Amino acid sequence: MWVWMAIAVAKKPAPALPEPPPLDDVAGRLIGAALVSTTAYDDLRELCDTVGHRLAGSPGLEKAIVWGQDKLRRDGLSVHTEPVTVPVWKRGAAAASILSPIERPLNLLALGGSPPTPAGGVTAEVVVVSSFDELTARAAEVKGRIVLFDVPFTNYGETVAYRGRGPLEAARLGAVAALVRSVSPVSLDTPHTGMTRRPEDGAPTVPSAALTLEGATQLHRLADRGPVRVHLELGSSVAADAQSANVIGELRGRTRPDEVVVLGCHLDSWDVGQGAQDDGAGCVIAMQAAALIGRMPMLPKRTLRVVLYTNEESGLKGAEAYDLAHQADVHYAAIEADTGSGQPLGFHFSRGDAPVAADLAAFADVARVLAPLGAGVLDEGHSGADIGGLADLGALTVGLYQDTTNYWPIHHTDADTFDKVDPTLLAHNVAAMAVMAWALAEE
Amino acid sequence: MWVWMAIAVAKKPAPALPEPPPLDDVAGRLIGAALVSTTAYDDLRELCDTVGHRLAGSPGLEKAIVWGQDKLRRDGLSVHTEPVTVPVWKRGAAAASILSPIERPLNLLALGGSPPTPAGGVTAEVVVVSSFDELTARAAEVKGRIVLFDVPFTNYGETVAYRGRGPLEAARLGAVAALVRSVSPVSLDTPHTGMTRRPEDGAPTVPSAALTLEGATQLHRLADRGPVRVHLELGSSVAADAQSANVIGELRGRTRPDEVVVLGCHLDSWDVGQGAQDDGAGCVIAMQAAALIGRMPMLPKRTLRVVLYTNEESGLKGAEAYDLAHQADVHYAAIEADTGSGQPLGFHFSRGDAPVAADLAAFADVARVLAPLGAGVLDEGHSGADIGGLADLGALTVGLYQDTTNYWPIHHTDADTFDKVDPTLLAHNVAAMAVMAWALAEE
Repeated sequence: MWVWMAIAVAKKPAPALPEPPPLDDVAGRLIGAALVSTTAYDDLRELCDTVGHRLAGSPGLEKAIVWGQDKLRRDGLSVHTEPVTVPVWKRGAAAASILSPIERPLNLLALGGSPPTPAGGVTAEVVVVSSFDELTARAAEVKGRIVLFDVPFTNYGETVAYRGRGPLEAARLGAVAALVRSVSPVSLDTPHTGMTRRPEDGAPTVPSAALTLEGATQLHRLADRGPVRVHLELGSSVAADAQSANVIGELRGRTRPDEVVVLGCHLDSWDVGQGAQDDGAGCVIAMQAAALIGRMPMLPKRTLRVVLYTNEESGLKGAEAYDLAHQADVHYAAIEADTGSGQPLGFHFSRGDAPVAADLAAFADVARVLAPLGAGVLDEGHSGADIGGLADLGALTVGLYQDTTNYWPIHHTDADTFDKVDPTLLAHNVAAMAVMAWALAEE
Repeated sequence: MWVWMAIAVAKKPAPALPEPPPLDDVAGRLIGAALVSTTAYDDLRELCDTVGHRLAGSPGLEKAIVWGQDKLRRDGLSVHTEPVTVPVWKRGAAAASILSPIERPLNLLALGGSPPTPAGGVTAEVVVVSSFDELTARAAEVKGRIVLFDVPFTNYGETVAYRGRGPLEAARLGAVAALVRSVSPVSLDTPHTGMTRRPEDGAPTVPSAALTLEGATQLHRLADRGPVRVHLELGSSVAADAQSANVIGELRGRTRPDEVVVLGCHLDSWDVGQGAQDDGAGCVIAMQAAALIGRMPMLPKRTLRVVLYTNEESGLKGAEAYDLAHQADVHYAAIEADTGSGQPLGFHFSRGDAPVAADLAAFADVARVLAPLGAGVLDEGHSGADIGGLADLGALTVGLYQDTTNYWPIHHTDADTFDKVDPTLLAHNVAAMAVMAWALAEE
């Protein structure tokens, strides 16, 4: 090689740089490499079993940041971290029970960001509503009471609104606490945590928690027949902000190294389960996709930048810090997987407020080569929470679109554990991610 | 009517008793009545929400016994109770955690009948096995350790053996405690309780509990890579036997009142969830089937005897007491539903050690009329725990064969709650039970 280069420099004009093979050949190679490897699966097992869950401010998250750097370095990426200040919310103890007309404990998880109840908890009659409209209609009943939003799951985006702003709406009407039915289509007495919105300056808020489907529907049935009193006690607290970090690993682009394609994921999780699917899977999918591209005979034109964002769940501070620190970078595109590791179905594209029709057309060949894997869908849609802000910096943002049938039931619960990860499907996700990442960086 | 009878008595020889209409007509009427009624569903809601779970010795079971009598009387049956002495096992507090190589709490439920751990609990290395054969092969490793049976669900009968005798086998080899993976095909970090066998006189036993699939598989993965230490603390206890009762409601047979067809179910449940499917559903299915038959223009030949057995779960003492007290009765048949309220598929027949082929043939018409409901299967098989002993008294025992896809995941858990009951499927179960009960009593 050295000899060849020396001759070339000495005797000829600089040769044209070699071109990579056609997409079909690259995709075949990446898909094959993904499907014969268990590295993503093994890495995820290690993250789940030796680190476990990793909420902002926890020792788990700090261990995960070390884990992430180690793996990216192992795979030959150029690695650094970037500091992020993150909020620290601690769950504390939580308990709730029906006091009358029967006595019955209720399984629950406090919502992230919820304030604690006063010492001794709150005891009040429950007003059960099935929608914000019903809350408005029954506003006069709310003062001094606990509001329960018993809203069946339709889709995540729609139903999560009750977890997000339900407590604030209840507080505005004078409620003393808010309960929400966990955001999930099914339940085995399974509470789902997740962030609830912080109030605007000066607005009231109340302690809030998620009940299980079982608990919420029982309260609803009882309340349909007479007054129901509930006791709720939450020991949550806020500690001083902590230092955390985004982990960044790069593969420098072949001909346009200043144009960046971000492969994102979030390394933090809720403080339950193992964060296996949310978003441990997304991390190993991005990391392994980059590792496979890094082992190709040549790298793509643009720089691939794996970003393991911190603090997506309880603040999105990792993404905010990244976007602020990298305003000057040229972000060509960003791609993320943040709905587990079910069957990859294709990709959802967005680009701020600009139309994406031309982008969809430009990647038709990617859809074609991924169609035999079942991942041939290209459509407009949500990309990912971490990379969403990059659209404002001009990036095309792409979400790996996955089958979520088995994802929402375990999302933000103690059941988000490694046993739910299918190694074959995980490898298929790596394959789809690798091919699209290559195309984004080479197109 | 009085006039007609008077004339008949005065002027003619006693007329032949009228015969009921053909089976197809009776079945049509029973099925239609079942499908337009919400009584079974409403009764089950009341049992679940106002009584709740009801383990032997608990106030819940005593309330349920009152509830059962009230409902049977409301439906016109002749009601009495028969005393049963039942064992009283109390769960107490339970906790377990991995101590090393990581620290992690484990979700669990003590097994019914388990002794407590010594004060302060037990701490030991875990030996994880996947079968009794592996336990035998690794017998030398067991002494002083905690055995975990991490056995994936195949079918209930096969997998429950590890819950049943796993702790005894571990104790025999010198283990200090036993853990079993919960008997279920799926899990959302869901522990399943259930009875573990009591030791023969003089044999050792050890404290035992069920872990979730998530906990068991994590322990297994960790143990595959090195020593794993676990702490287990169970505060279970045994109290003095309590008085309970079987609830019995009868519809006297038209022409052979001394021949009895038992419609069984068990009114007790485990001390978790609401016992909605196990076996609240079976109770309202039997009760409503009898109520519908009781409202027919004439009763069947034989006496229908609804038996709401007590203490199936933790001792089968209700069935034992019934069988002992009713040795002299002629039990023509017994039928029971004790696998929830999924789609009824047909019936499983058994008759002690005698062949049931002729019985199956005799009920071909029942299968035919129930086939359009999807409940046309007649086969040999398990009938029900409560009525099983009646085979020794000569009865044909019949189990309502149901789709259990959604049953095993909630069986013996906090998720066995009313929300899991589909009112339409429940009504279909009532219909199938009513038609078969009629046929058994009329055939």
